[in-house]
Amino acid sequence: MTTRSAPDRLLSVLAAFDHDHPALCLTDIARRAGLTLTTAHRLVAALTAWGALERDGTGVYHVGLRLWELAALAPRGLALRQVALPYLEDLYEATHENVQLAVRDGGEVVYIEWISGRAAVGVHIRVGARWPLHATGVGLALLAHSDPDSQEAYCAGPLASFTPYTVTDAGRLRRMLAEVRRTGVAVSSRQVTADALSVAAPVHGTGGGVVAAVSVVVPHADAQVPALVPAVRLAARGISRAAGWRPDPEPLL
Amino acid sequence: MTTRSAPDRLLSVLAAFDHDHPALCLTDIARRAGLTLTTAHRLVAALTAWGALERDGTGVYHVGLRLWELAALAPRGLALRQVALPYLEDLYEATHENVQLAVRDGGEVVYIEWISGRAAVGVHIRVGARWPLHATGVGLALLAHSDPDSQEAYCAGPLASFTPYTVTDAGRLRRMLAEVRRTGVAVSSRQVTADALSVAAPVHGTGGGVVAAVSVVVPHADAQVPALVPAVRLAARGISRAAGWRPDPEPLL
Repeated sequence: MTTRSAPDRLLSVLAAFDHDHPALCLTDIARRAGLTLTTAHRLVAALTAWGALERDGTGVYHVGLRLWELAALAPRGLALRQVALPYLEDLYEATHENVQLAVRDGGEVVYIEWISGRAAVGVHIRVGARWPLHATGVGLALLAHSDPDSQEAYCAGPLASFTPYTVTDAGRLRRMLAEVRRTGVAVSSRQVTADALSVAAPVHGTGGGVVAAVSVVVPHADAQVPALVPAVRLAARGISRAAGWRPDPEPLL
Repeated sequence: MTTRSAPDRLLSVLAAFDHDHPALCLTDIARRAGLTLTTAHRLVAALTAWGALERDGTGVYHVGLRLWELAALAPRGLALRQVALPYLEDLYEATHENVQLAVRDGGEVVYIEWISGRAAVGVHIRVGARWPLHATGVGLALLAHSDPDSQEAYCAGPLASFTPYTVTDAGRLRRMLAEVRRTGVAVSSRQVTADALSVAAPVHGTGGGVVAAVSVVVPHADAQVPALVPAVRLAARGISRAAGWRPDPEPLL
């Protein structure tokens, strides 16, 4: 424990909090961070004074408002989401289906926005959730537009299986990615859960590169893919433009 | 500089980033954090390895996705916003006006959600922005429902003035707060900018206490306050219920 650096110890306190542990007492923080109670107490006090953590009336700690304000500056987090929200709302209004915005982090997608309306059922992904690239529509859209080396490394596997329909064969995944590049949309059919289908399109940034993906998730049984494709592509292009992307001009006939 | 603690130094690197400085090079970080370049380099490397910061292709640092994921756990940040979003969207659909959700932090409100549609004009507040309690509708709603000592301390001032209409007199502010408690809504007329009016209502949490406030901001010139009040109150009650609040049962006649 004495070999850990000071930044490492402080960050381990923050890392003690996750989706399954959003509220922790001091003892739990010390245990999860691998720190003595004395050290944990000192670090938690510093983080609380700064506003990164908040202590409630029962002595339990939560992630604080100051961290949230700081996170609002993350270009791949709230900043992107803020640019995208009107277009996601329009997509939701046009389809009344679950609408998502996601970015890539290593071999996973991270959902940074999720609009489902109050009555939406069936799909339970939260903001901040992660999912492997090859299973989801947004992941396929992001993977298909990443650099060839990174794609090949990912396709080489291992590719986790979630349903009997999850594509876990490298060759088949490569063909799917080529199809995504050709059509401009990615369709994940029953690859995450056996009852859901998603249609996704890539979001471009200022430099032209793909920075995010937008999708709708619908029940597989009555999915009208051809009707969803234009709406998803339109939303993705709207977000791309708002993020500063300018499409290559089409040659005039 | 040597007297600063290790947590303090690391947090000063994070604090170097704010709304006016969302992207910084190493030299700027060192300067803004009051650190030597060597120390800043070591701390930035630790924060980047952990994912709290991200370095782009030009060597500039931004707030990273990991901090955003952590912030998604903040009960007064993204967690509350996630519960509230469907109701905020309904309020936006019903009014097509700027819709806000805010929480209190000391003598200020912090906006944690802002829906304005693509074409909204006139009011420019961003998510994460702060504003003094007495000037804004959400601030008045939060202040009116805080404990009497805290209210009195705030009313005693000083109360900053932003327009000729900002209430800066302690006695008048106390009367406004009593009116907010009586009616269940707060109206801030031209107190922030001379052309805007906001109508706000308090959001209750599980324990019954007020945890946030919701509002609409409209141009002052054609504000229909009586028409906005029921919509804002309804949205606030919807969010309160979704956050776990149960109203006291009304006596049956």
